[in-house]
Amino acid sequence: MASTIFAQMPFQSNSLNKSSNTHFVPSFRLPVSLSFKPRTALPNRFRIRAGLIEPDGGKLVDLHVAEPERELKKREAASLPRVKLSKIDVQWVHVLSEGWASPLTGFMREHEFLQTLHFNSLRLADGSFVNMSVPIVLAIDDSQKARIGESNSVALVDSDDKLIAILTDIEIYKHPKEERVARTWGTIAPGLPYVEETITNAGNWLIGGDLKVIEPIKYNDGLDRFRLSPVELRREFERRNADAVFAFQLRNPVHNGHALLMTDTRRRLLEMGYENPILLLHPLGGYTKADDVPLDWRMKQHEKVLEDGVLDPETTVVSIFPSPMHYAGPTEVQWHAKARINAGANFYIVGRDPAGMGHPVEKRDLYDADHGKKVLSMAPGLERLNILPFRVAAYDKTQGKMAFFDPSRAQDFLFISGTKMRTLAKNKENPPAGFMCPGGWQVLVEYYESLTPSDNGRIPEPVPA
Amino acid sequence: MASTIFAQMPFQSNSLNKSSNTHFVPSFRLPVSLSFKPRTALPNRFRIRAGLIEPDGGKLVDLHVAEPERELKKREAASLPRVKLSKIDVQWVHVLSEGWASPLTGFMREHEFLQTLHFNSLRLADGSFVNMSVPIVLAIDDSQKARIGESNSVALVDSDDKLIAILTDIEIYKHPKEERVARTWGTIAPGLPYVEETITNAGNWLIGGDLKVIEPIKYNDGLDRFRLSPVELRREFERRNADAVFAFQLRNPVHNGHALLMTDTRRRLLEMGYENPILLLHPLGGYTKADDVPLDWRMKQHEKVLEDGVLDPETTVVSIFPSPMHYAGPTEVQWHAKARINAGANFYIVGRDPAGMGHPVEKRDLYDADHGKKVLSMAPGLERLNILPFRVAAYDKTQGKMAFFDPSRAQDFLFISGTKMRTLAKNKENPPAGFMCPGGWQVLVEYYESLTPSDNGRIPEPVPA
Repeated sequence: MASTIFAQMPFQSNSLNKSSNTHFVPSFRLPVSLSFKPRTALPNRFRIRAGLIEPDGGKLVDLHVAEPERELKKREAASLPRVKLSKIDVQWVHVLSEGWASPLTGFMREHEFLQTLHFNSLRLADGSFVNMSVPIVLAIDDSQKARIGESNSVALVDSDDKLIAILTDIEIYKHPKEERVARTWGTIAPGLPYVEETITNAGNWLIGGDLKVIEPIKYNDGLDRFRLSPVELRREFERRNADAVFAFQLRNPVHNGHALLMTDTRRRLLEMGYENPILLLHPLGGYTKADDVPLDWRMKQHEKVLEDGVLDPETTVVSIFPSPMHYAGPTEVQWHAKARINAGANFYIVGRDPAGMGHPVEKRDLYDADHGKKVLSMAPGLERLNILPFRVAAYDKTQGKMAFFDPSRAQDFLFISGTKMRTLAKNKENPPAGFMCPGGWQVLVEYYESLTPSDNGRIPEPVPA
Repeated sequence: MASTIFAQMPFQSNSLNKSSNTHFVPSFRLPVSLSFKPRTALPNRFRIRAGLIEPDGGKLVDLHVAEPERELKKREAASLPRVKLSKIDVQWVHVLSEGWASPLTGFMREHEFLQTLHFNSLRLADGSFVNMSVPIVLAIDDSQKARIGESNSVALVDSDDKLIAILTDIEIYKHPKEERVARTWGTIAPGLPYVEETITNAGNWLIGGDLKVIEPIKYNDGLDRFRLSPVELRREFERRNADAVFAFQLRNPVHNGHALLMTDTRRRLLEMGYENPILLLHPLGGYTKADDVPLDWRMKQHEKVLEDGVLDPETTVVSIFPSPMHYAGPTEVQWHAKARINAGANFYIVGRDPAGMGHPVEKRDLYDADHGKKVLSMAPGLERLNILPFRVAAYDKTQGKMAFFDPSRAQDFLFISGTKMRTLAKNKENPPAGFMCPGGWQVLVEYYESLTPSDNGRIPEPVPA
């Protein structure tokens, strides 16, 4: 029920512009004032081509074993040493298998890991760079390493011992945990969600290699049909004759401030001369921290937002981005943007403090709220992507709706953070009218009602984010 | 006395090859076995040109005020807000003023700081990258920031209030200390020497801008004549008709293991077809940690090594590199290499654990000993530099001298770490014959004898490095 509209969306036809003319438009810049120097490598004028943006490395990676070879691979795997994958490891297999991380062909070997840690980018054979800011690695412990011995390949199995993939031409190298955390998060303070979940207790070794994934990863949670791969998304954008694709990454319910900037972006793209800009509304579907709203509830909420007409289904594709969440701010936002290039997006919307959260120990945000968009605009390998930083939207009390913040009348605006929003919904209080469409808000209230108090009789407290 | 030979060296004539032919040589690779993939952007064959390698950005930066304008600038400075520089700040002014960090024109503004932290490189106007791995920044505190107010420039003065430079078109931005440390050192453990010396108690703001340095920085310590600028070094290499310049960064006394690899490198360069490779023996002259051997004693020791014929003065230029030491391993080694490009070096020798030290808290090295050379070989902006990783040299008991370590007869070798070396000299014990020339060793022994016991009656304990 929650998903009818989504199921149809990717297959709706549209009658908009079918021309494939190549034409030029002037340089695009949202009216934001940023104090850093603009990226100098971007040409003043860029070209709109009818075709979608090329994936990183020129070609989308597909790491699935072709169906006729599956049985053979399964037999081959039976004799290999096994490595058990966590749920998050499986999410990364999913990400890698569909080419979100193109041109990566598997879990990182050390030369890729080191380039990611130090340079947030990988050098390709032709000397060019692709962006790659978060390590996509698989940790093993001493005993697993001993069991693998001299084997050149390992079988990767899930928690039920089901074969997921084979990792070939493996390389085992040291897992410098402290350094990995410091260079990825810019802190090693205890309490970073992804770190505690996947790194703190992980093994002292990393194993890299080429992935051969036995069959497409499914979660059987009723949401698999929304998990479009980069190939499927590109097909959908082409079917709709998109001449611009603008991606919006989110891990929170959509409020009218988000909607404002998505519709505003579309308006501006039309003004620039694009005839059919398509929005990729792309909620993150992998691991999120305990107090974030879970994926299934978020998907219900997003559905209401489209039903209520806040966003136009004709020009919106809603799909799930299978990556786990790092909460690594300026480092992670690059990954979020880079993966969307591979899905065909050539515009990326970035807001305040992307992928940020509160400092786990100190009473402050972990990252400077402006660093994310600055770092993104300067990141190696993202030159082809048009970064769209936006002004902060806030609740304008004089208009009774979300509007772009106007610092000259700051007193008229109310900032409603994610934490505040979750606290209101948890307490069944209503936000100001116009903050979120009523149907969407109702979903949030229902979510908090649905929470069974955990062992200590409490539901997870919102943490600042 | 200690320096007679050095004073002459840069001006010695030599009668070697004066040809300026352009010719080709095969790809150069020392017989090291590294498990990472070679940098793919390096062409298989590279060209030897008679001219020296171009500085980063195409032209050496010189930030000195021309002499006729000095008085004017001094008057101008008198009316500006003042920022007092620490000794280490002055060392950075020195580094910047002579163009070691070309194309930087002053203390970093935020867009440079962020690129350094996240990408270890800066994008230039033409879209190309130069390497820049350590932040070169100036911290100020809240009250200094308040005093600067809306001024567009500040006067930089030393601890005696002597005017050093004017910083113009300033930008003041937040100093994210924890993040800076984590991303530069890969840890935030307490006890990192440079961090404790310059960051922990530094102000919450950074001030960037363009430097106008009133007059060349001098230390009046008897060693200024060895502080050749990149321009002076390039002039010297040209005067000697160098067709290859190989740089060796060091902050320790030279032992025969170092000498072995320097002479071995020269031999290999000759084999490759270079006719006049010149060694830049380039001890670091800025801040070092308390238990390192101080610069003046190191310079005496280096002199003995040349006097004793361990290195050939005809083909060696000894000069002081004015940079302070970060002890930031793989991040810092890039800075060490990049600065030498600007001084004209096209080959850079890198050993085990460059710029590394013991972990300040845990009982292990802070960095993987192999990461430095791996990261260096993959670093953006260093493509033009030929990285020469070398095998570990150790004391070969069967030969009674330093030799390249042969793992097939590991039991024949004795590893003498910097810590071990310092402990022996401190205790007036002799190392095995052949470890260091006797004159050089004597300097070390004298150094430790010269140490006045500090307040608690002890001299600084060697820390692992």
